Amino acid sequence: AEVKKIAVIAGDGIGPEVVGEAIKVIKKIEELYEHRFEFEHGLFGGVAIDEKGTPLPQETLDMCQKADAVLLGAVGGPKWDNNSKELRPETGLLGIRKALGLFSNIRPATVFDCLKDASTLKPEVLEGTDLIVVRELTGGIYFGEKFRREGEHGQEAVDTCVYNVQEVERIVRQAFDIAMTRGKRLASVDKANVLETSRLWREVVNRIAPEYPEVELEHVLVDNCAMQLLRRPSSFDVIVTENMFGDILSDEAAMLTGSIGMLSSASLGEGSFGLYEPVHGSAPDIAGQGISNPIATILSVALMFRLTFGYHEAAQAIEDAVKEVLDAGHRTGDIAVDKSTAIGTEAMGDLIVGAI
Amino acid sequence: AEVKKIAVIAGDGIGPEVVGEAIKVIKKIEELYEHRFEFEHGLFGGVAIDEKGTPLPQETLDMCQKADAVLLGAVGGPKWDNNSKELRPETGLLGIRKALGLFSNIRPATVFDCLKDASTLKPEVLEGTDLIVVRELTGGIYFGEKFRREGEHGQEAVDTCVYNVQEVERIVRQAFDIAMTRGKRLASVDKANVLETSRLWREVVNRIAPEYPEVELEHVLVDNCAMQLLRRPSSFDVIVTENMFGDILSDEAAMLTGSIGMLSSASLGEGSFGLYEPVHGSAPDIAGQGISNPIATILSVALMFRLTFGYHEAAQAIEDAVKEVLDAGHRTGDIAVDKSTAIGTEAMGDLIVGAI
Ligand SMILES: CC(C)[C@H](C(=O)O)[C@@H](O)C(=O)O
Ligand SMILES: CC(C)[C@H](C(=O)O)[C@@H](O)C(=O)O
Repeated sequence: AEVKKIAVIAGDGIGPEVVGEAIKVIKKIEELYEHRFEFEHGLFGGVAIDEKGTPLPQETLDMCQKADAVLLGAVGGPKWDNNSKELRPETGLLGIRKALGLFSNIRPATVFDCLKDASTLKPEVLEGTDLIVVRELTGGIYFGEKFRREGEHGQEAVDTCVYNVQEVERIVRQAFDIAMTRGKRLASVDKANVLETSRLWREVVNRIAPEYPEVELEHVLVDNCAMQLLRRPSSFDVIVTENMFGDILSDEAAMLTGSIGMLSSASLGEGSFGLYEPVHGSAPDIAGQGISNPIATILSVALMFRLTFGYHEAAQAIEDAVKEVLDAGHRTGDIAVDKSTAIGTEAMGDLIVGAI
Repeated sequence: AEVKKIAVIAGDGIGPEVVGEAIKVIKKIEELYEHRFEFEHGLFGGVAIDEKGTPLPQETLDMCQKADAVLLGAVGGPKWDNNSKELRPETGLLGIRKALGLFSNIRPATVFDCLKDASTLKPEVLEGTDLIVVRELTGGIYFGEKFRREGEHGQEAVDTCVYNVQEVERIVRQAFDIAMTRGKRLASVDKANVLETSRLWREVVNRIAPEYPEVELEHVLVDNCAMQLLRRPSSFDVIVTENMFGDILSDEAAMLTGSIGMLSSASLGEGSFGLYEPVHGSAPDIAGQGISNPIATILSVALMFRLTFGYHEAAQAIEDAVKEVLDAGHRTGDIAVDKSTAIGTEAMGDLIVGAI
């Protein structure tokens, strides 16, 4: 079988722990299926700042560019928060997205039945919630020109939000494509009553929509979307939006599921290449204690198998194993109702490996 | 007594109905207190587009500038949604904010006990939630240069987000002042890990903070804030943020209270002048049926009395009357559990007037 190259970036905080369990899962898949993998490890984020003086060393980028997919743990922590911009982990994150052309961030916000109670929303409101936020990831105000200048009223700061037709087209097409594989409903979120970039966005969406006659399209203003996610989360299927709005709305959507420790994400470019990571952060407060929840990272592997490799059977096996272990009542501390029965990171990983 | 001039802008949809009830309340206050008011009415929004060919006629602006305060119903509706930019109601809204120098939008997100069940959040999560969002209203990406241009990859759209030190200072000072009158906790929301305007924002906040040693300050990233509002709404007291983030977060905060039909807002400039309006919109679907809820507009009058006129006793009388009527079980359709017992706009207004 063809050997797939996975670039592994464990990162900071709990990153190495959760990635370790995800790799165990991949190795188990190798035992059971014809799929073959090769791992290469690279420094990234805070640990790269400490060891290499930059959050995104060139050799890490090279490694990713030669790989078929990237598995990322998490980056960041208070240790680097007050560094200058070039020496901050998130600068590495923005850099790797841009350098690898990962223009699309896919975040499923799924409610896990066993975690329904963990949501702050009423169970009946959450019922049936299963949505995906498709966020544009390499444009907009994140990457536009930014600077300071002297103005009439003292110093001023400027950020520039830019989108071109092509950038909008590719992410919107992808969102329509995803909607076709799911509930065939797409909500395009913008602020077209105020922003020029949003008006361009909406024009492009409306121009592409006729290519997908089966998809029911709605335009939702970003402020209204922040409300509707709370009021009727289950009415959304796929949400597509620009970078900054997507940052905010995908976090809101993730939190309302109550399952944030379980959510995976994919960042995709042209072709099948992708970077996969848990939605949760590096959780420096619990790092090194072996109590973190590896499920989001393990489910990110399942997402990688589906979206980059097309290994649907293996992906399903992983997802089923996670479900089986949860249904049997096993919980890490973050999702345990009775904390005294909580199991550790490794124990959870082993149980899932055993269930595959 | 000194006569206070109130400029009344009924606007579109249910605007005229709810404003009508609010004026009844003001007239009742005149009967019971020494306070004297003079009303002038002006066209604004959709109705002004229809009658004057512009959403913000000069005479309406003049009227507002000569008044002590403005009472606004609501503007907008599908009829004008596809108009060109200059002929859209929201262009009038942005125009009036800028022309009147209303740099601060204050939105209390209060949970009404009788409406707790209307929230999609669990009651125990909502318990004790009482926060105010202070949103910068005349700067940022709303008012920066916007244009189209030809780029390398076809047409592109540009929005510019600009903040100067003075703009940030005045809104931040106001937020600290408000925090001092309340729970003495301030959350400043930005995206300092990405935006230059946010880094300027944070610098200014940190520079001003020592002037308010009693206020406990936290910096919260906007994506995290969207999550924390869901996870721990009651932990917030005052939230201060820039225009675009404030648009999104104030709507999210309003919705989580479940009381959106009851929430008032104030837009303030230098001095005591202010524009007061309900948080809800023009609700064109129910306009003209006499079933809309006038409470948010009536409570906006109470807010006007407090913030612009310093008529605290009269404000309290209005707020108490609203509470009394709700406690007695009276409900308009939007907040009635049993819709068949719902009363109309006028009946609700009369009951509140009667209870003052
Ligand atoms: C760390 C930060 C730059 C990043 C973003 O805003 O994109 C993060 O919030 C995310 O969503 O991945
Ligand atoms: C109508 C629109 C321009 C406006 C805004 O974004 O400010 C509205 O959403 C608001 O919050 O008052």
